[in-house]
Amino acid sequence: KINSERLWNTLHETCEWGAAHRYGENPTDTGMARLTLNDDDARVRRWFAAEVQTLGCSLSVDQMGNMFAQQPGRLKSSAPMIAMGSHFDTQPRGGRYDGILGMMAALEVLRTMKESGFQTNYNVGVVNWTNEEGARFPKSMCASGVWAGAIPIQQAWDLRDIHDPNVTLRSELERHGYLGDIACSSNPETGYPLGAHFELHIEQGPILPGNGRSIGVVRGAQGYRWLTLTVHGKDAHTGTTPFSARQDPLLASSRMIAASHDIAKKHDALASTGIIRVPSNASTNTVSSQVTFTLDIRHPQDSVVHAVQDECLKAFEAIALQDGKGVSFDWTLDTDSPAVKFDDNCVASIQAAADYLVGRDQSMLMTSGAGHDTVYTSKHCPSAMIFVPCRDGVSHHPTEYCSPQDCALGTQALLEAVVHYDQF
Amino acid sequence: KINSERLWNTLHETCEWGAAHRYGENPTDTGMARLTLNDDDARVRRWFAAEVQTLGCSLSVDQMGNMFAQQPGRLKSSAPMIAMGSHFDTQPRGGRYDGILGMMAALEVLRTMKESGFQTNYNVGVVNWTNEEGARFPKSMCASGVWAGAIPIQQAWDLRDIHDPNVTLRSELERHGYLGDIACSSNPETGYPLGAHFELHIEQGPILPGNGRSIGVVRGAQGYRWLTLTVHGKDAHTGTTPFSARQDPLLASSRMIAASHDIAKKHDALASTGIIRVPSNASTNTVSSQVTFTLDIRHPQDSVVHAVQDECLKAFEAIALQDGKGVSFDWTLDTDSPAVKFDDNCVASIQAAADYLVGRDQSMLMTSGAGHDTVYTSKHCPSAMIFVPCRDGVSHHPTEYCSPQDCALGTQALLEAVVHYDQF
Ligand SMILES: NC(=O)NCCC(=O)O
Ligand SMILES: NC(=O)NCCC(=O)O
Repeated sequence: KINSERLWNTLHETCEWGAAHRYGENPTDTGMARLTLNDDDARVRRWFAAEVQTLGCSLSVDQMGNMFAQQPGRLKSSAPMIAMGSHFDTQPRGGRYDGILGMMAALEVLRTMKESGFQTNYNVGVVNWTNEEGARFPKSMCASGVWAGAIPIQQAWDLRDIHDPNVTLRSELERHGYLGDIACSSNPETGYPLGAHFELHIEQGPILPGNGRSIGVVRGAQGYRWLTLTVHGKDAHTGTTPFSARQDPLLASSRMIAASHDIAKKHDALASTGIIRVPSNASTNTVSSQVTFTLDIRHPQDSVVHAVQDECLKAFEAIALQDGKGVSFDWTLDTDSPAVKFDDNCVASIQAAADYLVGRDQSMLMTSGAGHDTVYTSKHCPSAMIFVPCRDGVSHHPTEYCSPQDCALGTQALLEAVVHYDQF
Repeated sequence: KINSERLWNTLHETCEWGAAHRYGENPTDTGMARLTLNDDDARVRRWFAAEVQTLGCSLSVDQMGNMFAQQPGRLKSSAPMIAMGSHFDTQPRGGRYDGILGMMAALEVLRTMKESGFQTNYNVGVVNWTNEEGARFPKSMCASGVWAGAIPIQQAWDLRDIHDPNVTLRSELERHGYLGDIACSSNPETGYPLGAHFELHIEQGPILPGNGRSIGVVRGAQGYRWLTLTVHGKDAHTGTTPFSARQDPLLASSRMIAASHDIAKKHDALASTGIIRVPSNASTNTVSSQVTFTLDIRHPQDSVVHAVQDECLKAFEAIALQDGKGVSFDWTLDTDSPAVKFDDNCVASIQAAADYLVGRDQSMLMTSGAGHDTVYTSKHCPSAMIFVPCRDGVSHHPTEYCSPQDCALGTQALLEAVVHYDQF
């Protein structure tokens, strides 16, 4: 049985490195700003390295700074380890649980095994994946993507700090000594293959709390595509230009955003616009010349994601002609993350853990709405995830919160699932 | 007859002070960035002061830096002068004609009168109104508004440079020696009353070119109201948050912008959004917490402006409840500029000039879509405006263009109208 207090204390102690955005009186009432490979991320990495070595683990670092801690199994098998992985980096206005809980839970599982003298059959271990958030170096699930062969390493290395173009991901790896010497790959010859990958994560949404469930057995992740649309019109004086003479990109963008929502809703999918930008010299009495907005389309089936995209673009073409003299638009596909189905045996191990700990009516099978490192690992090893509820579904926000009970329950489920899978 | 070449040359020579944003090969293929009371605005002011004194005018400067040049009439009457006024300041990405043409035309009228030994019955003169654009110190038609008693002088003096809060309009008046000693008022005891106010201006819209007319006889200006709306929702992950659990202010704002357009169209009015802003830390996969947008409503009848505003706000209330868990919004009224009807006699003088110069089928009666200094002067003296076409209706843009022929025609019309009114 894991030690709930030790888990909680270790999590909050290590959140000293990167604590930010205080919102309450208690010492832990802050969010986090531990951006990938900043000094605080380097501190928590060094602490983690020392900690797993104390537990008797071997530690390997690959060329993306991914950290692999491995504890030998009873059978002395050379099979790749069963990994528990997540990430230490956070959003700039992030919370104390996203990624961090998964790392601390994995460490607590190792500590519990060591303390109770329990040894798995096969090697087990922990992975810290670099730059999951993609907040400082703008590509999310970046280093698990390189490991999975989905992102070329040079492209990842070349990512620039969004605020300082002189700093790259590679230059920061070098500065902190985290440019390891093994290939960032699942290739057994050159890289670091895994036998399985389990990740505990907060749900980051309202489904578990809304259904009163305490464990989510995550059997896959929905597909998503990110588009950036740019609508071109023409500057015009709002007082002197009749509607019929206008080419108004902001009016067109507004109609497009509303249409994308209505189309997605019809398909039971999601379509969301997070960013919209007009030029910085926009003014109240000038029709803007250009508007840019993002579109994030999601559904558990790729065919639906594509159908929503196609219908949106068709609707946008009609909207572009609708008002005044019309506008033009172009778009780019920034991210294409197809839907993923996790491994049946990993899911079964998690379901067995959930059944044992809380029973069927306290857990639920679900599909992850967000991308996670496990989406990439699943392409090269059996993988699955455990979700625990976070308060009001709030995440990527300083007030993100997961109760000590839910942190402990998720960690216990992670231990049970890994042990179950190891025996299987 | 005015000297068309002198007019054109003087206009472009003085545009050396503030020329910016080159777009073509010719020396005059640039826009302007002569922001109120910057060094270039001070240069053109000093040049103008010297020029009118050479012509034998007396020059007065009031406490807002408005410059009044006066040429004595034949009758030695003490009646306030008939003024031709406009402004030397420009938008940050403005053109060479907005305001500047009106000033240069007025000067050319004085030069022509002097040259041909023609004297009006009553005093005539030119006014340069400070900070018409409101681009650097954010209140448009600022100093004519103070003169008309519509804007308190302290409020105008306290306006801060939008990029440097340490600089105020008053501190810049002092720096350049343009904080005059007469009151900025139409009060005959303390200020500078006017007998009439004529302004030549480019139309800044597509109506004259669209109708193939060369002179607009402007009989009034439409009313307008500027609102800023702020829509409040809640940050949420776009992948993990079902539509039903969202409070999405950008979706609501989009529906509001589209609705305001449709409502205005129904009333034959205008409603336009020039600015929309999401917080700077917005991201593709986060529903924004807050969105701000502007709304500019216009119509020649104030009752219609109010009806459109009321219908929009009612529609916005319904939209706020429409999607997911709903959003809230609040709004401020930033500008309220009621419709203005210009003086019948001034309009008749302009119509007579147009009839004489181009005939009825080359001119048209119209209502100004934009605000101008003449909107404020009309509250305290008989006033009206002349419009000439600008290419494609483009204004507030470096490529703004008015042909030498149209500049000359407008200037001749200004002369004829002033002479006509003087005789009347
Ligand atoms: N967990 C998470 O926020 N991943 C980033 C990619 C996504 O938006 O799903
Ligand atoms: N002429 C002009 O652009 N005036 C500013 C106020 C308005 O938008 O009408």
